[in-house]
Amino acid sequence: MDNFTFFNPTKIDFGTDKEQLIGQHLAEHGISKVLLCYGSERIKRDGLFQTVSQSLAAHGIEFVEFGGIVSNPVLSKVREGIALARGHQVGAVLSVGGGSVLDSSKAIAAGVAYAGDVWDLFIGKAAIESALPVFSILTLAATGSEMNSGAVVTNEATKEKFAIQSVHTFPRVSIVNPALMQTVSRDYLVYSAADIIAHCIEGYFTATVQPKLHSRMVEAIVKTVIDNTQVLLEQPDNYPARAEFAWAATQALNGLIYAGTAGFNYPNHMIEHALSALFNVPHGAGLSVIMPAWMKWYYQRNPAQFQRFAKQVFALDDGLQGIAALENWFDSIGTPTRLSQLGISKTDLPAITDVVLGNAQWFGIADIYTKDVVAEILQLAL
Amino acid sequence: MDNFTFFNPTKIDFGTDKEQLIGQHLAEHGISKVLLCYGSERIKRDGLFQTVSQSLAAHGIEFVEFGGIVSNPVLSKVREGIALARGHQVGAVLSVGGGSVLDSSKAIAAGVAYAGDVWDLFIGKAAIESALPVFSILTLAATGSEMNSGAVVTNEATKEKFAIQSVHTFPRVSIVNPALMQTVSRDYLVYSAADIIAHCIEGYFTATVQPKLHSRMVEAIVKTVIDNTQVLLEQPDNYPARAEFAWAATQALNGLIYAGTAGFNYPNHMIEHALSALFNVPHGAGLSVIMPAWMKWYYQRNPAQFQRFAKQVFALDDGLQGIAALENWFDSIGTPTRLSQLGISKTDLPAITDVVLGNAQWFGIADIYTKDVVAEILQLAL
Repeated sequence: MDNFTFFNPTKIDFGTDKEQLIGQHLAEHGISKVLLCYGSERIKRDGLFQTVSQSLAAHGIEFVEFGGIVSNPVLSKVREGIALARGHQVGAVLSVGGGSVLDSSKAIAAGVAYAGDVWDLFIGKAAIESALPVFSILTLAATGSEMNSGAVVTNEATKEKFAIQSVHTFPRVSIVNPALMQTVSRDYLVYSAADIIAHCIEGYFTATVQPKLHSRMVEAIVKTVIDNTQVLLEQPDNYPARAEFAWAATQALNGLIYAGTAGFNYPNHMIEHALSALFNVPHGAGLSVIMPAWMKWYYQRNPAQFQRFAKQVFALDDGLQGIAALENWFDSIGTPTRLSQLGISKTDLPAITDVVLGNAQWFGIADIYTKDVVAEILQLAL
Repeated sequence: MDNFTFFNPTKIDFGTDKEQLIGQHLAEHGISKVLLCYGSERIKRDGLFQTVSQSLAAHGIEFVEFGGIVSNPVLSKVREGIALARGHQVGAVLSVGGGSVLDSSKAIAAGVAYAGDVWDLFIGKAAIESALPVFSILTLAATGSEMNSGAVVTNEATKEKFAIQSVHTFPRVSIVNPALMQTVSRDYLVYSAADIIAHCIEGYFTATVQPKLHSRMVEAIVKTVIDNTQVLLEQPDNYPARAEFAWAATQALNGLIYAGTAGFNYPNHMIEHALSALFNVPHGAGLSVIMPAWMKWYYQRNPAQFQRFAKQVFALDDGLQGIAALENWFDSIGTPTRLSQLGISKTDLPAITDVVLGNAQWFGIADIYTKDVVAEILQLAL
């Protein structure tokens, strides 16, 4: 096992009706005014906004609304949020939404505390020295952002989709009520399943140091996601399944399955970020296309681990059969496995490759993911 | 899944040579004087004490020595530590040792901040409102105390072995260097394996709400403990095995495998605490005796989960075979499975039963664990 430091100070308040406690959590942290970030107006139609505003009012907490954050959140919106937060001198950022709203909230929180342009923090021009405290109420289980310090944002001008990470951007409290996720669309449920599985398998296959304990934890999460997605497709309001799915999503990216592994990288995310930056495809949909293609390309570099995956997750003996089983499962639940399903054709590949090669620099794996390799993987995804 | 709040703010600094960083960690927390708690003088012979004192000196941190803490740590020693900490006005407690030293350190830290007698905190007469910050360097992987807020102490006068738990008693930083554990005796290695497995299976079998994700995580940890114990019995200096064993121990009791489960209790610990309180047997040795007996008694109350355990951990189809397999494995590694191996005979059973019944009140399961039931379980352990 590699040396590591594990520290995750986020408090998770998980379960039914927990969103009613948001005012109390903020008050316990001495917050009197928040920037309330959200996506569409859906939270006003379904009552969540009212629940939150009542809880804030009950604790004398003012809020400034900042809605309209979209999937694959964009830098211009983050800058707008920073200006608003500064103008109103809020003491914290409250995210009510899924990973996109939460990532934007983290970026805003870090940006407010930085004198220069927030993108500097994404490109390594400046370090995150502090941030406003972030709180969240999660409405979509997928990215794991509720219990980690990362935030991914797309710079529309440069088509770069980069991330920040800092000890200052862990949410102080994340409220995860699986019942709030029962209205997630069928599409976003299956995209989320793909996203969680991607978080698990990047390290699982690429790490040069991958303790068996960690592999077992990953397999536990992947099997849980597969089982509960099946249940939820039939019964969207099955609370226990929704809860296991949500908690699996959190565990997939709270740092534990990576603590002590080494040499891993995120090639599927690196490639997918190009798809969502260029074509604005849902992140999970992009990942379910890239993963089987990448796995076929990568297979011979770690055959033993692919055999393990096949055996433990699908009770199959052959590594290649395991890849096929995952692809078939993606097909069966209706998340895409081909670029054509995303409206992307062969003629788009050169443009995608260019962006991926830029990402490869940022991800630190440009030596492995050369132009030819990227083209080969994308070819397999056609 | 049951509603839950998960919060674990302990920073784990894991790996080779990490003990050299203890001064730095303390300095980062603004500590200038610590109570340095330890057990035997072994840490002075093997160089760990010198490493620690050098690291403290390098950061200008004074320390007050408090050695001689024994296994199954006792209340009188905790009271002594509290007096010493108060007399020297230390700013923190530093534990250098295994679970007993760490639990004593937590009790001292809480006791210093409480005006009355520290045992009040164990019997619920008073709540823990604050505590000195606790730091630790772990030398034995077993109790999981390095990443939780619990501490178990025996009151020699009353023969009660009770616990405290509080948000204030999480270690701020725990240093886990598996290389420091290579000199752990063969006996304590196998007792530790039993202890970790006990932490896993109490909830696994007794919870009325036990999500499958949690069962899978437990199985991952139990299999990891079994595999790596086997390796370590042959190769005590196998670092990767020592590391997986240590990290499995931490994960078994850092709260994650219990977060979202409900209705569980700790009958094996409840019974074992009587053995170690009365006969001062090593905690893990007591547990490896009690577990198979308890499992045989409990089997019919949750046969499906025992079947799952047999299948997932031992690749056996029958639940009772799974219990036998665990007992056989304990026998094979040399941790006791019979009371007689602990020097306890049939004539001792009434005295043990009396203490267990007292514990059952404290553990909140006196309705299930009546005199007849306890006698029956102990009979199975003869």
